[in-house]
Amino acid sequence: MAIEIERKFLVTGSDWRQGAGTVFSQGYLNRDKQRTVRVRIAGAQGFLTIKGANRGATRAEFEYEIPLADAEQLLALCEGPIIQKVRRVLVHAGSTWEVDEFEGLNAGLVVAEIELASEDQQFERPAWLGREVTDDARYFNSNLATTPFSAW
Amino acid sequence: MAIEIERKFLVTGSDWRQGAGTVFSQGYLNRDKQRTVRVRIAGAQGFLTIKGANRGATRAEFEYEIPLADAEQLLALCEGPIIQKVRRVLVHAGSTWEVDEFEGLNAGLVVAEIELASEDQQFERPAWLGREVTDDARYFNSNLATTPFSAW
Repeated sequence: MAIEIERKFLVTGSDWRQGAGTVFSQGYLNRDKQRTVRVRIAGAQGFLTIKGANRGATRAEFEYEIPLADAEQLLALCEGPIIQKVRRVLVHAGSTWEVDEFEGLNAGLVVAEIELASEDQQFERPAWLGREVTDDARYFNSNLATTPFSAW
Repeated sequence: MAIEIERKFLVTGSDWRQGAGTVFSQGYLNRDKQRTVRVRIAGAQGFLTIKGANRGATRAEFEYEIPLADAEQLLALCEGPIIQKVRRVLVHAGSTWEVDEFEGLNAGLVVAEIELASEDQQFERPAWLGREVTDDARYFNSNLATTPFSAW
């Protein structure tokens, strides 16, 4: 198990759009926020990830790489629509940002996440960083699957 | 992915009670029969198993061994009670039977499962084999967690 401490922000402008990024497809075998079970294909790799409930920006995370063929079949078992997005990894002032540009019914939504070692860890804000949405459940990927950005 | 073809029976008498067996603890991160997600500790091994919907005696199964410490923490994330049982593996006339003796709120329940290569595969019945319950959803482990044998 890992403890994941993550803050999430909206993104402004287009300076974050650097490089091709990696295509992600993901769905949920459980969207219950007490125990989400996510299937993800990231490029050519498959993953199964279980996360516990959020406590602030912190949650337990268990991630296992699985065969790509399994991940493809497990995506078909998921409840609700599959999320598609392009992830770019950007480094700014020594911090690593994951910028996710959503597609499909969530097109138009771009969010940036930073993983921290502690909840109060300081970091420098890139110019394209918008407002924080860490605690806004609408932006949880598990919720974007069923209530997409285009429906808000 | 594997395809699991399995038939399940009640058990009579006590001739099946041979050897010490292995202690199993298991819980569910999702009990939806379209996509059960099971956490199991079998002796000193941890497993994460996803199964699709049953079609007769057949269902898709994806099983991954995970670290024991992860399995212990994932059991705490499961919804509802944990199932405890002792599994014995018995060979009868060339067929392998898994005999599960339930404990806790399911004490008194003993079921035997045989895994087959095809739904119509023939096998010899051990003397202790009782009535078939393959299609009786009450005996699904995912249901025994929430509606245990003692409550029937």
